[in-house]
This record gives sequence, C-alpha cells and structure tokens, in this order.
Amino acid sequence: MALFVHKYGGTSVGSPERIKHVANNVIQARSRGDDIIVVVSAMSGETNRLVALAHEMHERPSTREMDVLLATGEQVTIALLSMALEAAGCPACSYTGGQVRILTDDAHTKARILDIDTDRIRSDLAAGRVVVVAGFQGITEAGDITTLGRGGSDTTAVALAAALKADECLIYTDVDGVYTTDPRIEPKARRLDRITFEEMLEMASLGSKVLQIRSVEFAGKYNVPLRVLSSFSAGPGTLITYEEASVEKPLISGIAFNRDEAKLTVKGVPDKPGVAYQILGPVAHANIEVDMIVQNVSEDATTDFTFTVHRNDYRKALDILQATCTALGAREVAGDDKIVKVSLVGVGMRSHAGIAARMFEALAWEGINIRMISTSEIKISIVVDEKYLELAVRTLHEAFNLDREPEAV
Amino acid sequence: MALFVHKYGGTSVGSPERIKHVANNVIQARSRGDDIIVVVSAMSGETNRLVALAHEMHERPSTREMDVLLATGEQVTIALLSMALEAAGCPACSYTGGQVRILTDDAHTKARILDIDTDRIRSDLAAGRVVVVAGFQGITEAGDITTLGRGGSDTTAVALAAALKADECLIYTDVDGVYTTDPRIEPKARRLDRITFEEMLEMASLGSKVLQIRSVEFAGKYNVPLRVLSSFSAGPGTLITYEEASVEKPLISGIAFNRDEAKLTVKGVPDKPGVAYQILGPVAHANIEVDMIVQNVSEDATTDFTFTVHRNDYRKALDILQATCTALGAREVAGDDKIVKVSLVGVGMRSHAGIAARMFEALAWEGINIRMISTSEIKISIVVDEKYLELAVRTLHEAFNLDREPEAV
Repeated sequence: MALFVHKYGGTSVGSPERIKHVANNVIQARSRGDDIIVVVSAMSGETNRLVALAHEMHERPSTREMDVLLATGEQVTIALLSMALEAAGCPACSYTGGQVRILTDDAHTKARILDIDTDRIRSDLAAGRVVVVAGFQGITEAGDITTLGRGGSDTTAVALAAALKADECLIYTDVDGVYTTDPRIEPKARRLDRITFEEMLEMASLGSKVLQIRSVEFAGKYNVPLRVLSSFSAGPGTLITYEEASVEKPLISGIAFNRDEAKLTVKGVPDKPGVAYQILGPVAHANIEVDMIVQNVSEDATTDFTFTVHRNDYRKALDILQATCTALGAREVAGDDKIVKVSLVGVGMRSHAGIAARMFEALAWEGINIRMISTSEIKISIVVDEKYLELAVRTLHEAFNLDREPEAV
Repeated sequence: MALFVHKYGGTSVGSPERIKHVANNVIQARSRGDDIIVVVSAMSGETNRLVALAHEMHERPSTREMDVLLATGEQVTIALLSMALEAAGCPACSYTGGQVRILTDDAHTKARILDIDTDRIRSDLAAGRVVVVAGFQGITEAGDITTLGRGGSDTTAVALAAALKADECLIYTDVDGVYTTDPRIEPKARRLDRITFEEMLEMASLGSKVLQIRSVEFAGKYNVPLRVLSSFSAGPGTLITYEEASVEKPLISGIAFNRDEAKLTVKGVPDKPGVAYQILGPVAHANIEVDMIVQNVSEDATTDFTFTVHRNDYRKALDILQATCTALGAREVAGDDKIVKVSLVGVGMRSHAGIAARMFEALAWEGINIRMISTSEIKISIVVDEKYLELAVRTLHEAFNLDREPEAV
C-alpha cells in the first residue's frame, strides 16, 4: 500500500461539477488500495472576489486580516470536496491549515512552513478516510492564520508529502505535464516523461508556469517525487525527481522563455570595486526584481553593466539609473524594453561541451542577433529582440531534436 | 471605562458600504472611551449561497463538513470589518470562533458553548484594539469547527459578554427595539424602553422574532443586560434586564401573536391516566412540535383533548390522530387550520387579578369568539379565528393603553 498526496488547483475545483470530477478521480486512485491525501486551492475566481472585497475596505489592508480573509477560499473547497467524496460513498475528513496543523512563521501573506503535525492525518488514514487539506494556509505558534503566498497550495502538498514520507506528490493542473517548450509557440513540443528538480527550477523560473518554484525547491530538498499531470485527461504526466544514474539523460530537456523582459545598461562605468552594488542597490531598494546580470571584461578603465528587469519596472529602473549614472560619473544609460529571454535547460549539458556552440550556430543560421548571454551549469540564456522569440524557440527546438525521444548519453 | 459587546447581524454587514457603516458606529461608540468587542454574522445571502453549494455536493451533507463550510461566512466578515476599522484609523484584530477560543460540545450545526478563553481578547483590549469576533461558530476540544445553529451570533455575543463581564451586550438589528406589538398590525405600537428577560422569552417564542430565544435565556442565566437597537438609525432601543424593584412596572408589556397555528381536538377521550401521553406520544415521535395544550375538566367519563401545531404539520398530525382515536376508543377528531394565537405578555400581571377579565371583556365587546385559552404566570394566550387577528391585537392594544407610557404600579 502506497501513500499519495494529490493537489488540485483552482481551475480543477472551479465549479461543483469539477469538484465532483476530482472526487471521482480520488476514489479511482484509492480503489488501487492506496492512501490518499488531497490538497486543494480555492475555487477559481474566489480569491479575486475576496481581494476585491478587501480593497473596498482598505487601500492597503493589513496582511494579518488579508490572511484571515483569503484562508476562507480553501476552507470552502475542503468542505465541498469532502461532501462530494462522502456522497460517492468514500469516507473523508477535511482540515484547514490551522487544524492539521501546518505551523508557519508569522510572515503574513508569504509565510514559510516550519512544521506539520501529522498525527490526525495518520489516524484518519488508518481509519480508512481520505484526508482533505486546505492548501496555501497555515497557522502561527500564537494561533494566527497565515497564507503561503502565490502557488502556496503546491508548497502545502509537497510539505505534507515530505512530512508523511509519501511515495509521490501528484500536482493536478490544467496541463498534462512539462513540455520541451510552450506548444503554442512550437507545435512539435513534446511532453517530458521525467525531468530533474534542477531543470524544473530553471524551467519554472524562466517562465514555464507549471509549478511554483518554491514547491520544487521544497520537493528537491526533501526528495519528494513530484508528478505534474492533468486533472481533465488521463496520462502519466511528468515526473520530477533527482537525476538517476540509470536514467537516460537527454542533453537538453527544454526551452524556456520570458516575454516580459526589459534590459538596461550603464555604459562607461568606472571599473572599480563596489560599482555593481552602487548600481543595483537603489534598484533593489525600489523593490524592483532583477533577473539576468551581465558585466563583461573591461576594455579600459571603464566597463558596461547590463541587467534585465520585468517590463513593468522598466521606466522606474531607468529613472533610478539616470541618477546613479550621474553620481558614478558613468558615460550614459541605455535601455530596451522590446527584448525577450530564451533559455536552453538540461542537466545533460553539464558534461557536454559544444552545446553553446550548437545553440549559437543554429541562431546565426537564422540571422538572429544575440544581445546578451548568461549561463549556469544547466542552462544557457540569451536575450534577443522581441520579434525573434518564436523563431528562436522553434530553431532551438529543432536543433536539439526535442520533438524526438531523448538520445542515450 | 465600560466594556461593551456589539453584535451586528447579516443585514447590518450585508455589503461593503454597510460594513463601513458598522465600522463608523463602532468608532463612535469607542470615542466615548469604552472598550468594544464586535461580534458579526456572515454577510446576508452568504450562508444561503454556501448551503446551496453544499447541496450540489451531497443531498444530506455531513454536519461536520457543513460547519467547516458555513464558518467561512463569518470569517470573511471579521476580516473585512477589521480592515474597515483600520482604514478609519482604529486598531482592530479579528478572531474566528476557534481562535478566541470558544469551546463547544461536538453537536455539529447546533453546538453549545462550554467555555471561552478571554486571554487574547483582554490583552488586545488592553493594547487599545477593537476585537472583532466571528459569531455563530466555535471549536471542539478535538479541534473540529462547530456552529451554534440559527441565531448563533446572538448567542456568541451574549456568551462573550458573560465571560468578560461586559456592562452591556448590544444587539444591532434592522428594527429599533422591541415593540408592544407588531407595528404593521397596530400603527400605534410603541417601542418599549425596557422589558424583562421573562417577558422577552414569551414575546420571542410567540412570534416577535427580534432575538433568538437561546440568547435571551443565556443572557438571563448570566444576568447580561441585553439591548436591542437599530444599526441603521440612532436611538436607545430596548433594554432587556431582570425586573428591578425600583422600576415602574407596566401591567402588560406587549401583545404577541402567531399566524401559523392549527388546532386539533380529540373528542370523547376516556378520562384515565396515560391518555395525554397516548395522544401526544405519536405526534412527538413524528417530529411535530406542539405549542398550546388544553384539556378541560371532564363532564362524564370522557374528556376533550386539544392542542395546536404549526400549520404545515396540520395534515400529518390529523392522520396520526385518526389512528390514535380508533386505538383509544375516542369519539372523534376535529381540527381547524384557520386559527391564530394572540397573547398578552407582562410581568405585571403576576400580582394583578382582573387582567384576564379585562382582556375577555374587550374581545367580547368586539364580538370576537375565543376558541381556546391557556395561561402562564406572565402571559395569557387565546386562540381565535384567523379573520379576527388584526382586530384582536388592536382591541387589546387599546384596552391596555399600550400606546401610552406605562402606568405606575
């Protein structure tokens, strides 16, 4: 007998009919003799409704009260799903985050899980019940309700799976797995059977919005096998685990991209210690998140410093840089908000030279000019003009044969 | 400095605008230097929406899950009201029933309060905060969410007032107090400044649906002064307390009535011990609630046994009685579902003879035939034909001068 944690997002529980569908899915999984814990989000639309109500009350509601309000969303879903399970003859029991109890710190609206008490869950499972837990929420030592922030239900599911040493954590969503790239851009994109945690982190942070980064980090840390699959259609989905020696590793797992980037460059910066901080400090202070950072070797006593931000922050960042430029005695500030980032991701590239060369060659053949390059152990990111996004993704998908099953290493 | 518990019902918090109005009301009360605890219900309509969702899941949802579901209604309101208070510059802190903690038994959907932990409330009040508590809900020793049943928010308010030894518990509602009778029937009906717990119990159970009976019982038991007043207009409302020797006691406080009655009579019942039980046992067994019961002295070896039920239960009760009649060897069963009950209520009648005579005389002058009579220490109820309801109420209102301030005793 195995133990599985299922997680269903807001779309999967978005209506009474869909909740019944989830109940059937759970019952079918349970009929194989396994123990099931289900983590659910608020019904789609509910969180937005509550946030709108809050903003009618207060321009900037206190985060403590926001958490009290938002936590009701998942509480409604756990009760409804338990009822649906019972209606289908399956004993079930619901728990809020506070009841389980999922202990968090007191960072309201973005709390972190500290501990989970699994006693009640274990005794319910032993009594033959399906346990339904509210995702996204927890409780502090003092008894205050907290929420885990966006994608928090995934984190709840992974944390429960880790605490209970579950055999697998299944994240049911509206896509049937992780793809080599976005099928809307490249119709030949292929569903991956497996992907490593590291690759998934790079894919997620680069814009393939299947799973929340935090839950993948968490799963990797506690070695919880994660599976992403569709709640609307059957299929094995994609399993996310540590790389295993016996597994055939593809060179490249997929191509991620991000449309919403803008880049900024301070040119002719005096090349001396502390300059990077002087440039990025004020930007961070303004709560602007920086993505890629590139600084090349300097030609003379000055250098060029480039970084990318979300396109929404472009104007604000530009204003900040103008001031910094003057203060530093740099030459000028340049920027472009019509750029995108495209990344090759794959643990295979660790041990293989020539990936970057193959990538740049393919792009050159298509006449795509590369504006920035940044690399990590398992990814290569480039910045290109916005107009090349689709062409670059398709070119790389073909160049690395991603439409075919992986080659053996 | 005094301590007050305010309670606002679903209509009073039925929209963002109304919640802001409540916030202003609380802030105004607090500006007098008093400590305020606010108990709120779910926004009007919310409970019905949740119940409808539940019934889409299960014909008869488990009461445990029903409580998990319904408790979200008040949780939304406490968060929104706290935000509204904070937006107006008033420090506030919200608590669910489980957080406060309002300990109840495990009779889901109709739980009874066992204990309240007032530590957090007291420390919040000491820190200058308004404490906002979710009405209607509690938590069991095992940590399960419970609800207190219809009117449960009133009970929460009274229980908190009792636990904190509050100076007064103010129940804000959509009427501005308790009236001598329904103003829709008798336009001269007058708001009472005071009424005793006992009178209020008789008024409430007789159809003046201002306060839930349980909360009045509770307030009486713990001697919590209750005040019923309007959340939409200013005014002192009606204070419900124990009778005080110094207070001028009116003979009659008010006239209650109930439109939805039906009466049933078993005629020619053998007059021997156990007959009343043989008649009412099967009725109670069928979950039919019986209101008035009258049995007169018997003329010969038989007697007539009459009782009233809710009009919806009339047919069912009639069928049951037919069977009982045969079994008992009684003569016949008669019934009438076109009757109403009208009651005079007043602690003053305890020590005054002649109230009944004055009542019957007034009715006789108007030619109103009395079909049944039943009395308690502080009320006299009569059953008359439905068509006489308004005339009877107005006649009695005038006969006892209820449109004028009470006479001294």
